[in-house]
Amino acid sequence: MINGDRLLQHLQDLSQIGRNEATGGINRFSFTPEEKQAIELVTTYMEQAGMRVTVDAVGNLIGTYGEGNETIMLGSHIDTVPEGGKYDGALGVLAAIEVVHTMHEQQLLPSKKIQVVAFKDEEGTRFGFGLLGSSAMAGLLTEEQLQHKDEVGISIEEAMKEFNLTPYPLINAQRNDITAYLEMHIEQGKVLENEDLPVGVVTGIAAPLWLEVTVTGVSEHAGATPMPLRQDALTAASEMILTIEQLLNDTTESVATVGKLTVSPNGTNVIPGKVTFSIDLRDIDENKVSTLEAAILQQLQLIAKRRHVTLTSKVLQRIKPAKTNTALQQQLATSIEKQGIRPYSLISGAGHDAMNIAEIAPIGMLFVRSKDGISHNPLEYSSDEDIIVATNIFYDTVVELAR
Amino acid sequence: MINGDRLLQHLQDLSQIGRNEATGGINRFSFTPEEKQAIELVTTYMEQAGMRVTVDAVGNLIGTYGEGNETIMLGSHIDTVPEGGKYDGALGVLAAIEVVHTMHEQQLLPSKKIQVVAFKDEEGTRFGFGLLGSSAMAGLLTEEQLQHKDEVGISIEEAMKEFNLTPYPLINAQRNDITAYLEMHIEQGKVLENEDLPVGVVTGIAAPLWLEVTVTGVSEHAGATPMPLRQDALTAASEMILTIEQLLNDTTESVATVGKLTVSPNGTNVIPGKVTFSIDLRDIDENKVSTLEAAILQQLQLIAKRRHVTLTSKVLQRIKPAKTNTALQQQLATSIEKQGIRPYSLISGAGHDAMNIAEIAPIGMLFVRSKDGISHNPLEYSSDEDIIVATNIFYDTVVELAR
Repeated sequence: MINGDRLLQHLQDLSQIGRNEATGGINRFSFTPEEKQAIELVTTYMEQAGMRVTVDAVGNLIGTYGEGNETIMLGSHIDTVPEGGKYDGALGVLAAIEVVHTMHEQQLLPSKKIQVVAFKDEEGTRFGFGLLGSSAMAGLLTEEQLQHKDEVGISIEEAMKEFNLTPYPLINAQRNDITAYLEMHIEQGKVLENEDLPVGVVTGIAAPLWLEVTVTGVSEHAGATPMPLRQDALTAASEMILTIEQLLNDTTESVATVGKLTVSPNGTNVIPGKVTFSIDLRDIDENKVSTLEAAILQQLQLIAKRRHVTLTSKVLQRIKPAKTNTALQQQLATSIEKQGIRPYSLISGAGHDAMNIAEIAPIGMLFVRSKDGISHNPLEYSSDEDIIVATNIFYDTVVELAR
Repeated sequence: MINGDRLLQHLQDLSQIGRNEATGGINRFSFTPEEKQAIELVTTYMEQAGMRVTVDAVGNLIGTYGEGNETIMLGSHIDTVPEGGKYDGALGVLAAIEVVHTMHEQQLLPSKKIQVVAFKDEEGTRFGFGLLGSSAMAGLLTEEQLQHKDEVGISIEEAMKEFNLTPYPLINAQRNDITAYLEMHIEQGKVLENEDLPVGVVTGIAAPLWLEVTVTGVSEHAGATPMPLRQDALTAASEMILTIEQLLNDTTESVATVGKLTVSPNGTNVIPGKVTFSIDLRDIDENKVSTLEAAILQQLQLIAKRRHVTLTSKVLQRIKPAKTNTALQQQLATSIEKQGIRPYSLISGAGHDAMNIAEIAPIGMLFVRSKDGISHNPLEYSSDEDIIVATNIFYDTVVELAR
């Protein structure tokens, strides 16, 4: 059994660093004094848990417990979005430390090395480029990407050097010794709440395909153009948006969102001549994304043709989804059942460091129920009870893997 | 028969005043040197047509032919929108002058006084307040409205005084002697082109009801929220927009347009939490507008309820539609038939000075076919043939009314 009071105290103490007293929001960005303070605090926790603490070439904070050539890695991140909550990322790092701390107290010596990592700059708040530390560890980071600049023109590379990091050659941060990577994270959605369950096993991380669609009709006088003579880009776009929703309602796990839409000329008495909108399409199965993408574009073209408007589309971003490892899913489910809880599988719609680590190791993720699905917000909340039960499950799984 | 060459020459000459050589667009706004030049030219045409020319208290340019206590008034306007065309307004004034010119040449003495009016500031380009001269003539203009200011802070009242007008008391511009008002105007729509007809009889002017609708759902992570758990304000708004379109397709003359729409927060990976959109609803029958308004709002509320979003709406502007006089419609139809053309009735979706004059006199309007329905644009075009046949029809109707 983990020490729930200690974990909750750590969570509380870390949440004071970067906290905006007025809003309750946390502002803890990479390469800032707040992050440095957080790293120092977490280093203390790691050392108290019996770990040796190091920082890798790109700034990932790593605590090591036990010995061996193979590594079981547990981790998440301690940076936040602007005005973020206290659970996103932080819970995963602190729960992992608590797992090791409990093993250490129980004098459980693992057969493999266990490492806890706080990944560098997951949120990408300052440079508009996230998942930095896990990209480097997976060998995905490029020198070009280190040239991303913040608002005042400082690059990631410059910020790294200012913090005494020597990122080059990038291969120094790359790892090939990880036999399992496990991440505990708040769900950031309402699925578990809806299922009345404290935890769930993640089957995959659904990376987004981002499309931009432009519908071009004819902009005419709203009074002088009878309904049948119109080529209204917005009624056409509306039908397209409903069709996308309809196509997605027939699937079980995929999601599609039209989140951004602009109308031109956007005048009360002018029939819209042009509408541009985004589509965010996600599934953990690349083939399902491709199939849906094709089905959506085919339906949209049919609508455009019938309504005498034209449609163009382009891909803005296509990220590869990641599946979690079946054996790790199974181990987590077994640990859940031991707590008398029904094992429940769900996908992660949001991206995580685990998505990158999937390139170099089997990954597993445990989700903790989020109240009202709220995240990236001071109202982000997971209950103490859920956190404790989730960390005990996480502990059981790690102990089993390290046996 | 009117003198087509003379009319077309006048139309051509007037179009040179305020013309932007680079674009072909015409910029002739009220209380400018260009308007003054246009007034001088049109005054010459009126005098050549045998009329006595005066300017009323608010600057309406009026040519009078014949004598009598009752007035048949013909008119339109000679100001333009920015980068306007050569037909909108100008054609109505010049055709009316040509009608009188022909009567004068034929030595036709009318039983009633005939007046041709070029109304002051129909377009409202400079002050954001249009239909100025016809408002004053109908007794609708208020002193408050004369305080509308242009971009540099000059009010309509100040501009009037600068042009040696003495608008107060406003009742000086009001008229109660008009027994019929006729206006010839380009259609600014595609109905006549679609019917393959050069002219049409306007049955009414459909003033707009403007509504603003706000749909509030819940803004959540586009990846972490499964489709069935969403309260997406944009899919709800899309269904509403299609429902409005559907309700309007069941009517014959009414039109409704969602021209303006904004999404919040408008992020690619965020489910829209709020959508605000406009509805521009028009018919020449106030009761039909009210019935449609109620039907639309009822349907929208049902959609909101089913989709677990909230809907609020408010009226931004409600202008009274104007019907044209049945006897004047009939006379115009008879004159059209004499030219071997099928009389065809349509509504005016755009507003006109006639809408104001309907408050004090029976009105009639004759529409001339517009190429591609284009207006308020240098590409605005009506053919010479259509203009000549329309003006001959207009002449016949005026002669009949003045008999």
